[in-house]
Amino acid sequence: MAIWYKLGCTLEYFVQTPTVFIFNIEVARLQRHQGLVERLTITPDIELNRHTAPDINNRYFSVHAPAGPLTVKYEAEVSLEVLRADPNTVPETPVERLPLDIMPFLLPSRFVPSDRLAAFARREFGYLAPGFNRITAICNWLYDNIDYQRGASNEQTTADESLILRAGVCRDFAHLGIAFCRALEIPARFVSCYAYGLNPSDFHAVFEAYLDGRWWLFDGTRQANLDGLVRIGVGRDAAEIAFCSPFGGNVQYGDVTVSMGRSDGSPELLGRTTDAISTEEPAPNAGAA
Amino acid sequence: MAIWYKLGCTLEYFVQTPTVFIFNIEVARLQRHQGLVERLTITPDIELNRHTAPDINNRYFSVHAPAGPLTVKYEAEVSLEVLRADPNTVPETPVERLPLDIMPFLLPSRFVPSDRLAAFARREFGYLAPGFNRITAICNWLYDNIDYQRGASNEQTTADESLILRAGVCRDFAHLGIAFCRALEIPARFVSCYAYGLNPSDFHAVFEAYLDGRWWLFDGTRQANLDGLVRIGVGRDAAEIAFCSPFGGNVQYGDVTVSMGRSDGSPELLGRTTDAISTEEPAPNAGAA
Amino acid sequence: MAIWYKLGCTLEYFVQTPTVFIFNIEVARLQRHQGLVERLTITPDIELNRHTAPDINNRYFSVHAPAGPLTVKYEAEVSLEVLRADPNTVPETPVERLPLDIMPFLLPSRFVPSDRLAAFARREFGYLAPGFNRITAICNWLYDNIDYQRGASNEQTTADESLILRAGVCRDFAHLGIAFCRALEIPARFVSCYAYGLNPSDFHAVFEAYLDGRWWLFDGTRQANLDGLVRIGVGRDAAEIAFCSPFGGNVQYGDVTVSMGRSDGSPELLGRTTDAISTEEPAPNAGAA
Amino acid sequence: MAIWYKLGCTLEYFVQTPTVFIFNIEVARLQRHQGLVERLTITPDIELNRHTAPDINNRYFSVHAPAGPLTVKYEAEVSLEVLRADPNTVPETPVERLPLDIMPFLLPSRFVPSDRLAAFARREFGYLAPGFNRITAICNWLYDNIDYQRGASNEQTTADESLILRAGVCRDFAHLGIAFCRALEIPARFVSCYAYGLNPSDFHAVFEAYLDGRWWLFDGTRQANLDGLVRIGVGRDAAEIAFCSPFGGNVQYGDVTVSMGRSDGSPELLGRTTDAISTEEPAPNAGAA
Repeated sequence: MAIWYKLGCTLEYFVQTPTVFIFNIEVARLQRHQGLVERLTITPDIELNRHTAPDINNRYFSVHAPAGPLTVKYEAEVSLEVLRADPNTVPETPVERLPLDIMPFLLPSRFVPSDRLAAFARREFGYLAPGFNRITAICNWLYDNIDYQRGASNEQTTADESLILRAGVCRDFAHLGIAFCRALEIPARFVSCYAYGLNPSDFHAVFEAYLDGRWWLFDGTRQANLDGLVRIGVGRDAAEIAFCSPFGGNVQYGDVTVSMGRSDGSPELLGRTTDAISTEEPAPNAGAA
Repeated sequence: MAIWYKLGCTLEYFVQTPTVFIFNIEVARLQRHQGLVERLTITPDIELNRHTAPDINNRYFSVHAPAGPLTVKYEAEVSLEVLRADPNTVPETPVERLPLDIMPFLLPSRFVPSDRLAAFARREFGYLAPGFNRITAICNWLYDNIDYQRGASNEQTTADESLILRAGVCRDFAHLGIAFCRALEIPARFVSCYAYGLNPSDFHAVFEAYLDGRWWLFDGTRQANLDGLVRIGVGRDAAEIAFCSPFGGNVQYGDVTVSMGRSDGSPELLGRTTDAISTEEPAPNAGAA
Repeated sequence: MAIWYKLGCTLEYFVQTPTVFIFNIEVARLQRHQGLVERLTITPDIELNRHTAPDINNRYFSVHAPAGPLTVKYEAEVSLEVLRADPNTVPETPVERLPLDIMPFLLPSRFVPSDRLAAFARREFGYLAPGFNRITAICNWLYDNIDYQRGASNEQTTADESLILRAGVCRDFAHLGIAFCRALEIPARFVSCYAYGLNPSDFHAVFEAYLDGRWWLFDGTRQANLDGLVRIGVGRDAAEIAFCSPFGGNVQYGDVTVSMGRSDGSPELLGRTTDAISTEEPAPNAGAA
Repeated sequence: MAIWYKLGCTLEYFVQTPTVFIFNIEVARLQRHQGLVERLTITPDIELNRHTAPDINNRYFSVHAPAGPLTVKYEAEVSLEVLRADPNTVPETPVERLPLDIMPFLLPSRFVPSDRLAAFARREFGYLAPGFNRITAICNWLYDNIDYQRGASNEQTTADESLILRAGVCRDFAHLGIAFCRALEIPARFVSCYAYGLNPSDFHAVFEAYLDGRWWLFDGTRQANLDGLVRIGVGRDAAEIAFCSPFGGNVQYGDVTVSMGRSDGSPELLGRTTDAISTEEPAPNAGAA
């Protein structure tokens, strides 16, 4: 059963010298995001350029903002069709059956040095039976061993540092979960999203692992409902899908407000799903390496 | 004037338990690589899967090798059409005019933490006039400040570590050059290639920077002729275009032999070009952000 | 009951250009090392300089070796008086009662960045009741979580890296144990020693923690008997008590052989002690900060 | 000619739970610090414990502060006898003639991983003629290559990171200078001091290198007069001589004010000395390894 959500964000900046901004805040155009209606308002009213990344469908737009205040406001309404499965029925895909085009999500990346964490991951999770529940075990480990703590990390914090710090925010939980998956030869990628039930409301970051021919959502923070996530972008790690990347100028950061609620105004569901939640129908080439 | 080259490699392994190998050793199918004739021989004769990365045209193939010896032999002949320009006529592309689809090459990656090197790059190269010659200055700096030294680095060495070690091999020179470019907001990417005149013969790594609407070749090592490079792959850094990536098994590495010579058998040219060498015709969307 | 041991080592080098060597291989002159008889033979017969570090009693000697082979042979016989206690009776010393002269052993050092590991240590061990058994819990954690594996680390490996690598040798176990102690505000230091029962025979590294007014021995590797350790040196970490430090020349390293057995030739005791083993009588100023 | 200085500091804290503080703010008792008159006032009036480190003469005191405000005020007057020499007459001490008791100042330490910086130091300074002027060249390099910039570093920044960041404060300049010296096998140590002419007034950090049988002062920041430094402490690096180290409690940091002026009220001298400034008479064992 699809549920309708209203969501959006307002981002404020004070541009000191003309600056190019690349934004990635719009709801991705996916089969599971149906009936998307949206409005983007940029003040001042400047020209924007658009680009949608092939395959992964991230929607970027850029503006060349003149000096002065800049406000970017995004509002959307979307029906979220959740693809569910019984976790016990989802096996890992043997590496020889992985499609070659998802190989990049097995590789180490800027904030996910999975090559450095290989011994740790094998030592901690290598003995577990392959399958969806092994990734659940990784998420439980993250929840039990890493403190969710604002200010414990910064925008340069890597997954191996989070392991030492034993603390971080959603970005760090996602990076570490991805690192463990890749170290175990399970493709994994970073997901930025609007999250229903996140408190306080903000952009959220979770991760996806590739199992049984498609991508499944995981969240070691337990901060939001897996069946209430509306995807913005996916990428190797946070470097690829910052919601705002400024280039070539000087900028003062102002307020960021993010909201998400049900369109019918009904309150948040109390219970969290224990279903496996997939973000995509199986790709046609799944299972055929 | 196009010149014909003969090139190839032979890679030997002893597979201890069945292993998936992904190889990236074949000449990329580019406009500048004309008349490509090639032969790939895998012993034992096992099935292979192929994937060509969209946009960047890297050609990957994978095999699921059984236990025992594995030999991969690649032979090719190709005519290399070199695209030349006068370095003084190649400006940098202002960040507001960069196409959004090359944004990934501005971002930090596993071995190129350009975010960490931003202050260093601006301090050392920020005052130079923008343009092709600024990247040449970066290459000169690399040549003057980093020792080309086998064994000084390993497969986990990052660009910031190379800066401390003051030594490395072609991979490290490329990573550091890319890091400086990205820190200066110039898109840059890693290139693996066959290199005419490299001594001893081996795979080579150089980098490309995006200037004036297309990609140009740079090599801080001065080990090979820029106008004798035949591209295998491009990527964010070495993580993406290893010539061989084994997964899921145990492998002993044997010999790697690489060769490249002129088809007509004529000896290496003595002089090195001082032209700017581009690897691509300008993209249709170049200059339109 | 004191037991007599015979021990020693032979170190071989080939000196390529004249080199200053500082050695720290002789048995420390401590109250618990009684009846020490020893012989040091240097070939060729060159002059040596001696220095004993105040307070900690490490015995250093240096030689300025000419080009050619160098052999250093040390033989000793010593009666080891072991100071035992019931672990349950040994409390931690509250920080306000620590003598100021052991403050250096609370500080981070080259291979023990305890400041970086503070959150990890508090998260993992902070909830345990203070006392000797908390340090035993740290050693058990090391034994359970870190693989003893030659070649997993090198001479630049730090305690935080060992935590990521999940593997190391005695030096790394000691560094990590020290890091956790210091992070919990328990003074701790590195100990190099001859170890009875170590197999294969080699120099060994363990650590000491300061509890209840004196230093106690701990070993997370479980490789040797705590009541059969003859101390060579103590220091902040391995940087301070390398058994051999060459300066100012070029040296090829040859064989290192180390031996330790009981003087009466009786075989190794099978059982390991569960007593708390201290290396020193309480200092006169203990307990008076 | 000795000059009289008045100096001091006031340190304010709010202690949330009882905390042990170790302070190192008092003028060291050295031959060059003559006629020292001083007053230490702690509010509330709590008992303090004292310890002077052997050899290096650092004066530490500790207090066990109850919850509530804590103020530590130190006032002193001292006559500074400056020991000068002509830089061109000060050779390096060959490593074979270094006294063994200064060996610790050749070793890597927490914030000075000189082992990691060996290649860099040799590459940049190895070709220079040994002697005082080589250390001056290191200081000039620091001044030319590192930006003095508050906030660029933090209390965990190491010398190799400063090299990447290309920015830091006095502590970082000192760490990097020490690292280069040690990497060149020149003993070097960290110095905390009151500095005449520092603007704004604050604690200062410089470094000492051991040349020709004694210690000489160096400062890559050029922030203060070398002949107006009154030493507080020396150590391997900043880890050892923090002016305030709290243990075992929770503390809010308040204001730190530091002052230093001439006793006769005369204004700061305009010119900076170009003399070599030593902090100690030659040790009796200098030159005899």
